[in-house]
Amino acid sequence: MNDKKFVEAITARDVDFAKWYTDVVTKAKLCEYTSTKGCMVYMPNGYAIWENIQANLDKRFKDTGVRNVYMPMLIPESLLQKEKDHVNGFAPEVAWVTHGGSEPLEERLCIRPTSEVLFCEHWQKNVNSYRDLPMVYNQWCSVLRWEKTTRPFLRSKEFLWQEGHTIHATQEEAEARTEMMLNIYHDFVEEDLAIPVVWGRKTDSEKFAGAKATYTIEALMHDGKALQSGTSHYFGDGFCKAFDVKFVNQDNKMEYPHQTSWGLSTRLIGAIIMVHGDDDGLVLPPRISPVQAMIIPIAHQKEEVANVANKLYADLKAAGMKVDIDLSKKTPGFKFSNQELLGIPVRIEVGPRDLENGVVTIVRRDNREKIIVTIDEVVTKLPEILAIMQKDMYQKAKDFLNNHITSATTMPEMLEKFANQTGFVKAMWCGEEACEDEIKAQTGGATSRCIPFEEEHLADVCVCCGKPAKHMVYFGKAY
Amino acid sequence: MNDKKFVEAITARDVDFAKWYTDVVTKAKLCEYTSTKGCMVYMPNGYAIWENIQANLDKRFKDTGVRNVYMPMLIPESLLQKEKDHVNGFAPEVAWVTHGGSEPLEERLCIRPTSEVLFCEHWQKNVNSYRDLPMVYNQWCSVLRWEKTTRPFLRSKEFLWQEGHTIHATQEEAEARTEMMLNIYHDFVEEDLAIPVVWGRKTDSEKFAGAKATYTIEALMHDGKALQSGTSHYFGDGFCKAFDVKFVNQDNKMEYPHQTSWGLSTRLIGAIIMVHGDDDGLVLPPRISPVQAMIIPIAHQKEEVANVANKLYADLKAAGMKVDIDLSKKTPGFKFSNQELLGIPVRIEVGPRDLENGVVTIVRRDNREKIIVTIDEVVTKLPEILAIMQKDMYQKAKDFLNNHITSATTMPEMLEKFANQTGFVKAMWCGEEACEDEIKAQTGGATSRCIPFEEEHLADVCVCCGKPAKHMVYFGKAY
Repeated sequence: MNDKKFVEAITARDVDFAKWYTDVVTKAKLCEYTSTKGCMVYMPNGYAIWENIQANLDKRFKDTGVRNVYMPMLIPESLLQKEKDHVNGFAPEVAWVTHGGSEPLEERLCIRPTSEVLFCEHWQKNVNSYRDLPMVYNQWCSVLRWEKTTRPFLRSKEFLWQEGHTIHATQEEAEARTEMMLNIYHDFVEEDLAIPVVWGRKTDSEKFAGAKATYTIEALMHDGKALQSGTSHYFGDGFCKAFDVKFVNQDNKMEYPHQTSWGLSTRLIGAIIMVHGDDDGLVLPPRISPVQAMIIPIAHQKEEVANVANKLYADLKAAGMKVDIDLSKKTPGFKFSNQELLGIPVRIEVGPRDLENGVVTIVRRDNREKIIVTIDEVVTKLPEILAIMQKDMYQKAKDFLNNHITSATTMPEMLEKFANQTGFVKAMWCGEEACEDEIKAQTGGATSRCIPFEEEHLADVCVCCGKPAKHMVYFGKAY
Repeated sequence: MNDKKFVEAITARDVDFAKWYTDVVTKAKLCEYTSTKGCMVYMPNGYAIWENIQANLDKRFKDTGVRNVYMPMLIPESLLQKEKDHVNGFAPEVAWVTHGGSEPLEERLCIRPTSEVLFCEHWQKNVNSYRDLPMVYNQWCSVLRWEKTTRPFLRSKEFLWQEGHTIHATQEEAEARTEMMLNIYHDFVEEDLAIPVVWGRKTDSEKFAGAKATYTIEALMHDGKALQSGTSHYFGDGFCKAFDVKFVNQDNKMEYPHQTSWGLSTRLIGAIIMVHGDDDGLVLPPRISPVQAMIIPIAHQKEEVANVANKLYADLKAAGMKVDIDLSKKTPGFKFSNQELLGIPVRIEVGPRDLENGVVTIVRRDNREKIIVTIDEVVTKLPEILAIMQKDMYQKAKDFLNNHITSATTMPEMLEKFANQTGFVKAMWCGEEACEDEIKAQTGGATSRCIPFEEEHLADVCVCCGKPAKHMVYFGKAY
């Protein structure tokens, strides 16, 4: 019996990917369901990942002048209804508060599914002149959408996210902000989560309710399904007109500002699991992992082992590393398996035989590489090992992504691709929603994921209807 | 006309304290009401204070082993009802969700007024052995209580807070945690917010719903009213029994764990305003202020002034100081008044005459002291000036508090004190709720704020009924 069986076996990815996912989430204690149906507890191991995502993104936001705010969680029904497309998109999936204490409310309130209307109301009261612009706001909060089927991190009724909302004096400036925030998402996800993405613009049918344009980053999970991982929207002045948000421009004329919003959520934790995880559990990229190294004393009852392990722990802490030490009485095999299950990037084995030679063994979680390091050098070597691991994890995921992008120029070819392989299929498209619907129906669920910023010319005509093609689209089955 | 009139006059504190408070909140752009009645927008200037409170407290929590989690915002009615005292305390003031999308729910859900029951449910599923204990959790979130009358930061339907929840194998350990967290609140509020407090245990009538003991820190506002600023509760095993949370102890016997919770909210922003603010606006303690120094170039059109101001800004930023620069075209007087209104701890005036002598003028917000500093020394002197200012602000508030604590041994004396002066009145108390009610009625609202940890012996008998006294109590009118 393998040591890892001591921890608790995880279903193999190739046997049942959905079960593998649930096993990892449960056994690594990331989240669990509650008696509030479709709502989760974000447990310490899961929430700590979100805290690191928050800290990292928040810094990137603030470096571009974003200021954080907090808006009410409740929205009066009349306010939600002010922008037609928006309310049509969200009204069917909101939760309604009808009573406060023991009394029925005069007007019912919905729990925010997103907060565009509250920001517009705020701007209506606070924007007068071009000197007040731009307003570049963000909030970290939870939102609620009454989803029927839920999956941990990927889709739950309530989830945590950030929603940025901005208004600008000109269309150009608003569009530049939309693009800037998509770039931040792209860089954060690729650099810190080691997750490569394809990115571009959504087709009209996949746009956010009320937006003029929606941009997206799309990651590819190990099972070949896409996960929309962050979106940035340009709204034009539609909401501002609906909410009567106006400003006096430099020529002393009244104008409507141009608006953006952009959001990224705890779904990303699902992406980290499904891009990097393996049959032994979670594999966390060093730059986002709450604990970067677990020190595991072997034969910890030996005084020298305990002394060296404790000193190493203190030294690494003092050097600002995120490090933990497993001083439990479990077997080394159990401790190794537990560190692997939790996805801690490396373990530092401190054993009596190694100590005779003045070294410890560092084992990488992603490829099990063993690196012998002299005790004195651990503090300087560990950051280097973690940096290389981060880079290797990205490259591995990038290779996987590249190996799962194909193209099709005819429907039989497209159907064959979606029947026999997984990942993205590039194809030309006429611009009509009817063809997207047809492709979705025939492939059993593949949707247009994005029109990339750099389109290729694969053919002259739409893969579906044969009419002249307008764009190249990434199609894929998605979470 | 005084320069500050250019900004916008604030009602004087002595004229109308409530209006002064609203003026400061509004004109410093800390928060504003929304069409969701009784709910506020935390605007950037206000939210940034909360972010600093969060960062500072969160570090203090984590240093003691606290782990953050996130629980659902909705609680099924049946779950809320499991602990009798608790539901009696909160049911009258919760908001009820009755519909999801267009469909009525089978069971209605309340928006959390606090999350004890969700933590208990979680523990019921996750605690088995003494090895699983203690569990020391906290969450940063918003809660909602259906208050009838609201005031910015002090009382709103929805507010932001942290709620810590822990369970322990023994009563001693749980009581020690209750005390530890109260100590953290005390130290944080006194050291970082420069707000002195009186502290101790709540009487039974002022306890949290379901708690065995509630401990509190109580600050004194400039108008002589108390503000409960943080509470820490010991629950015994009552909730664990109601929720069937059990563990196997070291002797292999089943036991119920002992529980605590502790919370602190955005009320504290109200305390900062009302303890330190003056007739020119906000005065923020340096250790919690989002911006610690505002550089104000005087005659900014002069190239040398602009150069020195910009270099100073870059140098202070590089040194890790929280600094801003006012490059607007407003008059120096307007800029000074605006910096004062916002409560930024110091301004650094960069003017042509000073520059001839190679110096700048640093002006403290709290006492208007002007400190001449050579340009080269600003980076080293500024932290010193801020540290002294922090200490002075605390001492000033401490003197104010000490000057507003009196004592009474008879009811006529007590009534006279509450009629003619403001602040706390110390008095002996028999332990009966009837006397608390009587004191409240006769004084027009003074309640028992706390039984201090170090009681004095003022008399042998209760100030109200004349029966033997059990405790010394701080009485006060409170927000």
